[in-house]
Amino acid sequence: MSGPVATERADHDLAFLLRYENVAWYENGTVRILDRRIYPAKVEFVICHSHREVAQAIADMVTQSCGPFTAAAAGMALAAWECRNRGTAEQRAYLRDAAYTISHARPTTVARMERITGGCLVAAEQALAAGARVDQAIVAHMIASNDRRYGKVAKMAAFLVDMFPDDGKILTQCFGETIVGMMLREARTRGKRLKLYCPETRPYFQGARLTATVCREMGFETTVITDNMPAYVMEREGIDVFTCAADAICLDGHVVNKIGTFQIAIAAKYMGIPFFVSGIPDESHPNRAAVHIESRDPDFVLQAMGVRTAAPGVRGYYPSFDITPPALISGVVTDLGIYSPYDLPRYLDSADIGPYEMVI
Amino acid sequence: MSGPVATERADHDLAFLLRYENVAWYENGTVRILDRRIYPAKVEFVICHSHREVAQAIADMVTQSCGPFTAAAAGMALAAWECRNRGTAEQRAYLRDAAYTISHARPTTVARMERITGGCLVAAEQALAAGARVDQAIVAHMIASNDRRYGKVAKMAAFLVDMFPDDGKILTQCFGETIVGMMLREARTRGKRLKLYCPETRPYFQGARLTATVCREMGFETTVITDNMPAYVMEREGIDVFTCAADAICLDGHVVNKIGTFQIAIAAKYMGIPFFVSGIPDESHPNRAAVHIESRDPDFVLQAMGVRTAAPGVRGYYPSFDITPPALISGVVTDLGIYSPYDLPRYLDSADIGPYEMVI
Repeated sequence: MSGPVATERADHDLAFLLRYENVAWYENGTVRILDRRIYPAKVEFVICHSHREVAQAIADMVTQSCGPFTAAAAGMALAAWECRNRGTAEQRAYLRDAAYTISHARPTTVARMERITGGCLVAAEQALAAGARVDQAIVAHMIASNDRRYGKVAKMAAFLVDMFPDDGKILTQCFGETIVGMMLREARTRGKRLKLYCPETRPYFQGARLTATVCREMGFETTVITDNMPAYVMEREGIDVFTCAADAICLDGHVVNKIGTFQIAIAAKYMGIPFFVSGIPDESHPNRAAVHIESRDPDFVLQAMGVRTAAPGVRGYYPSFDITPPALISGVVTDLGIYSPYDLPRYLDSADIGPYEMVI
Repeated sequence: MSGPVATERADHDLAFLLRYENVAWYENGTVRILDRRIYPAKVEFVICHSHREVAQAIADMVTQSCGPFTAAAAGMALAAWECRNRGTAEQRAYLRDAAYTISHARPTTVARMERITGGCLVAAEQALAAGARVDQAIVAHMIASNDRRYGKVAKMAAFLVDMFPDDGKILTQCFGETIVGMMLREARTRGKRLKLYCPETRPYFQGARLTATVCREMGFETTVITDNMPAYVMEREGIDVFTCAADAICLDGHVVNKIGTFQIAIAAKYMGIPFFVSGIPDESHPNRAAVHIESRDPDFVLQAMGVRTAAPGVRGYYPSFDITPPALISGVVTDLGIYSPYDLPRYLDSADIGPYEMVI
């Protein structure tokens, strides 16, 4: 177990978890992935010595949110290292196999993973043609890809922070990955004094463990609440804005995000509190009918932090996401501005999204 | 540690937790209180050898909901045992002191506790005048008082079950104590096929630990969900009725209940699902302004089942209750029928509530 990596690319004005070299990284024949299942109680990395171990770590939920995409690119660099002494044709075949293995680590993210591994295959092809080191070419591609994503998220953050008062209270939901740190950096730059309220996000506690940690590291007063408190906090504490990221933003304005988003959005509408979702509308989800809600292990909701809560014979139920309809959404915050949820195709008309670019 | 008590008064058609002799009991100089902090993982009783230990157990949240009221009466019987060899005047003074100690075990239930201990003092006075055993007189009062309460709850349950379909899905919130078992017994008697969905009720998991256990013991299919799932379950699973008990029902129709009730009620209204609250309108709470929301230890929300979830420096927040306005409530289910939340003073005009009777 080695300590956190701090490269010259590290943005030291971001919280630990928002520096992508801390999320997942490739170096000299190994990939390290921060184990978010135990963060922040422990800062430990899963070390992978083959791309198959990377795929397994992704399947085992070692990292979540955007983490698997960085891990996938790092895994492709590792695959290049594994086959470095073979002939060019064999390397090509090996990398194609690795791309398949890594992309299929989780059934629900295959399409998005293929954008990442596809970009790595293009970078590898160029390196092979030029006789350059393939693993290093893939790492360079990974860095460029993440930097491009961070650039877009920074633009989103600027539009989102426009919606925050100078001195206000913001309610979050689950862990929005990069946008959380970016919006807080932007708010800090502008001198906005924000108090963050983070629902804990059962059953995995992403809100308590990840979002709250990032908010605190960025220097803001941060309060964790249980998932039954958002309506009370809106009314009693005076929440100004409810905001979150999304697992998918359908072109018809339906937003797929962590279970719980829907009922917080209903409460926000009831209270007259604006709700902004950050992210890029997803062409592969034209409408609500295209959404498949992944069901996870139902027994997982019958425990908390590893301790069983319910009696034998009681069932669990674990839909991972819910769907919030556009009528409950005040605006979709993109890198090009804030769009009405009923006007998302217009975003795609204006956007410049490369074939191998990560859809945020 | 002795096993569960089974007296001839036990209603064997009720779940374990709904038989009041399993909640708290007095016998031969000791009081036993089921430790609900660990139930159902473990069935253990706290054994008290003095009324001061009973007061301490109540303060320590060994039992909740209606449990403290039965424990208080048992504690009064124990106090009578403690002073049994003193003179009559001394016994009177000792019992008055004990009533004060037990009633003030928790600051927020003093008025309701005084109804219980006051009834015990009346029973003691009659026994002293008649030269009878005071502890036994108090136990007899406790049994009569609980039987009267159970009789009223049974009437409530009948009105509530009228609102359930013959084959339907019911969403609960927190633990409604006696009404849960009574409504399920009534539903079973009528042959209604119900599926119960119980939000786990963070941070104490009363829904997962207590409500779900009772539902399962009563023979119904029971599913625990996390507190961020009610809106999703209403929409996807087709919930027919949302129902819960209350910590207080104000005469202006505002309902005080476990944190989370408010936002489930908002979601139910949004979905067009009826919401019924069972309980007796409380004269001591004329309106919302009379409600004091108890704040509990904020750090308690930063852990789950004893395991810390959040990073250092992050704050917690723990309001124990919330307030649901009458506009979100379909009806208040009493022993005399279902009242509009806007028409509760009419209930009190018709009701027959004795001075020492427990307000449910």
